[in-house]
Amino acid sequence: MKISKLVGVRMRENPSDITITSHSLMVRAGYIKGVANGIFSLLPPAKRVQLKIEKIIREEMDAIDGQEVLFPVTMPRELWEESGRYQAIQGELVKFKDRNEKDMVLGMTHEEASVHMARNIITSYNQMPFMIYQIQTKFRDELRARGGLIRVREFTMKDGYSFHTTQEDLEKYYDRCFDAYNRIFKRIGMKNFIAVKSDTGMMGGSVAHEYILLTDIGEDTIVLCKNCDYKANMEVGVSKMEKFDYGTDTEMKEVFTADAKDIAEVCQFLKIDEKNTMKAVTYAVKGDSDKLVLVFVRGDMEVNEAKLKKITQQDVMPADLSEGQLVAGNIGPFGIDNKNITIVYDNSLEDALNLVCGANKEEYHITGVNVARDLKVKEFHDVSKVKEGEKCTCCDGELYLSNGIEIGNIFQLGTKYSKSMGMTVLDENGKSITPIMGCYGIGVGRAMASIVEESNDENGILWPMSIAPWQVFLANIKPNDLEVKEKSEMLYEEMKKAKIEVLFDDRKQSPGVKFKDGEMLGIPVRVVVSPRTLENGEAEITMRDGSTEPYKVKIENIVSECKKIIENYMKKYEI
Amino acid sequence: MKISKLVGVRMRENPSDITITSHSLMVRAGYIKGVANGIFSLLPPAKRVQLKIEKIIREEMDAIDGQEVLFPVTMPRELWEESGRYQAIQGELVKFKDRNEKDMVLGMTHEEASVHMARNIITSYNQMPFMIYQIQTKFRDELRARGGLIRVREFTMKDGYSFHTTQEDLEKYYDRCFDAYNRIFKRIGMKNFIAVKSDTGMMGGSVAHEYILLTDIGEDTIVLCKNCDYKANMEVGVSKMEKFDYGTDTEMKEVFTADAKDIAEVCQFLKIDEKNTMKAVTYAVKGDSDKLVLVFVRGDMEVNEAKLKKITQQDVMPADLSEGQLVAGNIGPFGIDNKNITIVYDNSLEDALNLVCGANKEEYHITGVNVARDLKVKEFHDVSKVKEGEKCTCCDGELYLSNGIEIGNIFQLGTKYSKSMGMTVLDENGKSITPIMGCYGIGVGRAMASIVEESNDENGILWPMSIAPWQVFLANIKPNDLEVKEKSEMLYEEMKKAKIEVLFDDRKQSPGVKFKDGEMLGIPVRVVVSPRTLENGEAEITMRDGSTEPYKVKIENIVSECKKIIENYMKKYEI
Repeated sequence: MKISKLVGVRMRENPSDITITSHSLMVRAGYIKGVANGIFSLLPPAKRVQLKIEKIIREEMDAIDGQEVLFPVTMPRELWEESGRYQAIQGELVKFKDRNEKDMVLGMTHEEASVHMARNIITSYNQMPFMIYQIQTKFRDELRARGGLIRVREFTMKDGYSFHTTQEDLEKYYDRCFDAYNRIFKRIGMKNFIAVKSDTGMMGGSVAHEYILLTDIGEDTIVLCKNCDYKANMEVGVSKMEKFDYGTDTEMKEVFTADAKDIAEVCQFLKIDEKNTMKAVTYAVKGDSDKLVLVFVRGDMEVNEAKLKKITQQDVMPADLSEGQLVAGNIGPFGIDNKNITIVYDNSLEDALNLVCGANKEEYHITGVNVARDLKVKEFHDVSKVKEGEKCTCCDGELYLSNGIEIGNIFQLGTKYSKSMGMTVLDENGKSITPIMGCYGIGVGRAMASIVEESNDENGILWPMSIAPWQVFLANIKPNDLEVKEKSEMLYEEMKKAKIEVLFDDRKQSPGVKFKDGEMLGIPVRVVVSPRTLENGEAEITMRDGSTEPYKVKIENIVSECKKIIENYMKKYEI
Repeated sequence: MKISKLVGVRMRENPSDITITSHSLMVRAGYIKGVANGIFSLLPPAKRVQLKIEKIIREEMDAIDGQEVLFPVTMPRELWEESGRYQAIQGELVKFKDRNEKDMVLGMTHEEASVHMARNIITSYNQMPFMIYQIQTKFRDELRARGGLIRVREFTMKDGYSFHTTQEDLEKYYDRCFDAYNRIFKRIGMKNFIAVKSDTGMMGGSVAHEYILLTDIGEDTIVLCKNCDYKANMEVGVSKMEKFDYGTDTEMKEVFTADAKDIAEVCQFLKIDEKNTMKAVTYAVKGDSDKLVLVFVRGDMEVNEAKLKKITQQDVMPADLSEGQLVAGNIGPFGIDNKNITIVYDNSLEDALNLVCGANKEEYHITGVNVARDLKVKEFHDVSKVKEGEKCTCCDGELYLSNGIEIGNIFQLGTKYSKSMGMTVLDENGKSITPIMGCYGIGVGRAMASIVEESNDENGILWPMSIAPWQVFLANIKPNDLEVKEKSEMLYEEMKKAKIEVLFDDRKQSPGVKFKDGEMLGIPVRVVVSPRTLENGEAEITMRDGSTEPYKVKIENIVSECKKIIENYMKKYEI
């Protein structure tokens, strides 16, 4: 490919409205162009990278017996009603009417489609297990599309679905997929990624892992142990409470606290530690605004919404208490007797005493609460967020938090979809059973952007050799010089013949412009032909990652040298 | 791949509601499964075929300097308003609102997206010409989805867009693309296809070609010459009128014709040849129901709507005359004086005389019309359909008609999109010019179905080797026989090692079931291992297309024999 005809421009300046590195670099280097909020076109270099990532994914999915299929982007309402998701998912799921006024959806995942494909044609245990996967466009109407390809609305995704007769068989396959995912991310050149336990959210199911690229710009928070291998998404992360001396146990007493409302104000008013308070956090049930969930945690803790949703099995959101069902700022556990209010107590309160809580009336709180003595709590739950510095439940090591981007996920789905959609097969004894499913996703575009996010410098992108759009950037430094022209064109032809992926800069531009373009594009190897290098019949090789000093090689050996460099780099990504 | 784990069933019976061969075979052999009207999932064998077709398309597009990109499936209304198509296309274009109430469309083609990508980044003549293409899902809300993958609503399409500074340059590139398309169809094993001139329809532009698979089930009608190379879609097909003796020229006279309304009735009433009549056909302009277009053709001809649209530059449809602007059945050219009615005369009337036409009043017609004498026709147009048996305008040869399926198309678009969307570049003299575009489409799924439509027999599909889902069907005829099991499994492993694409039938099924499944799936080579073949240390090879008698080969030579067969077949598709 000659850069003179390559569709795309390289911009020196960062667009003022872009704050995320990978977004900026992919726009500036001519990889992506925004079409609408969260919707991008991929220019030729990005499509080349994407095809390479897809090839690696395909190889690894085939290696674990995946069978590639293609589900439709558009699906009828009926299919999503079978699973219950047509009603359950609001906002993110695009619904539209076709010309015959039939309700349709745009696929955001394809659990329904996978069961639709398999049911009736897989009828016996001896056709199982199997895994079907696709690489296909999806649409998810994100409220907060951001960061270029990091969080988009339309995206290319590899999604796979496995079907099993037993939980053991699912777990065995899940482990194979876990390993395949590690291989995929390693092969595409991702460095700083980890697999963590995660919440299963709206997908249903129990066990799940997310693959996370650790990076400051990530929106996910990860809990990690400094001592052992424990790592989990904040949504499911757990910790041990440290011991705390609550002070002397006393009688309960209603006290005047004036307009002190939040924990900080109450602590200041009463001159106490926030660990000596009981915080009330109120949630409303989505789609049923009469129903409230009232969570009590120790004053220094935060409620973890993902855990709360799992405990209550309901989709909740922070409540707006303006209509006065409860006295905001003075809410406490005593005297709440309303069948529309569910109360959840956090583990942090289990042994607590000498606490202050709201009195459920304006300007008053209650002091001296001893949870064990004063409250008849049937069950405590882990409903709070892990805090930096707390202890690991596995090894007592110190926990710390890190931001990350989710680059892939695997779920043990269970029978949520197969059951609701009526898929059954016969087991060895001729008994009808419901298959147990797993599902496995990787966002292809997000993986590409994540690599850029972790592999770049001030001059642009540094692509891993395994997914670089071109392996070699060949620059003719003086197009007007006949010998330079001839030799560089000869090298270009020879490289193509040797199946080296080469981008040839033959433009009438200054060397500086060419070098900057090659660096910004992130091509791993640069070969420069100039009058000076030709004095000794040579060309100069520069590694984009600076792994060696630039060096000169005889023209006749350039192709074999490039071949060798490429092979050596590719070995880094072999498993 | 072992067939025991292959997701899909083979059905012996034709589903009663399916009438088209390729649809039936692809459902019965486990290639596709309907999800909704005109929307299908591809099962693993179909996805394998599709990937092979896509690879061939990609190679040929790259060979003519195409740059692969990816445009979004979903696009904002604004983009389609720039080109005017947001309003212009009704019905087929799916429009929906996102969660922020923004109007969006589902891409049915990507002219707008291609201009959006190129404009502002291609700014100079020396970056041109270039062609960008994608292989992507499209949605077109067809009223008459039918025939499995032949006419669907959601489909995978390769669409390419080229940009040029001059018409000559476009034509040069168009010719390269024309050849590339021929190579693509040849390489995927299409036999009975032709390229014909076609109408440019709603795409805009002037010159266009369709690639047509000639087959009875096709919805397109193609005009071909028995003598020369002339071929064209009916929409643009032309012919020479045969000479006809109209009889004696007479005076015009109003005659009573009772309730004779259509041409047949009038001819019977007056005992004349239909060639001695002038037929009136009325069209309404879409979106402007007051406006009518009145077409006069000789009584034996039919109006060609595509030609009419081009002549009037308006989107017309057959008019409903119930509101009595005209006297249906008695319409003639005399006394029509209404600025809302446009009159078009067909070439067939140019030298006609002694004609009967409507008198524009109930129960009356006019006889003895001499067009040259009685009507002041400014311009005659070719607005009628070619009829079987008419003469070729190139060579006077006899024309005939054939049905066909459109499997691809190429258009010289002109500046319709670049101009309306404000794309300009500087030419050699620094003058701002509007690029001239071409566009090039192939429906991948339809190509697959078309191959099935022409390559099948009573036992199932016959895939060309170049796109067969598997090259070899290996059948272990007696799984309980230890030696058969061992040898067949050895062959399976060796074939995989030799990169032969093999589907291994290791099931506990009868030989008949296995043979039928292999044949229905359409795999080109069958290798059978049975106790009988093993008596002489052999396996039996059978060609799906019956090109040779079944023959036996020593087990140790089976892999090399298969390799040889595959190579020989692949040569057929080389260019």
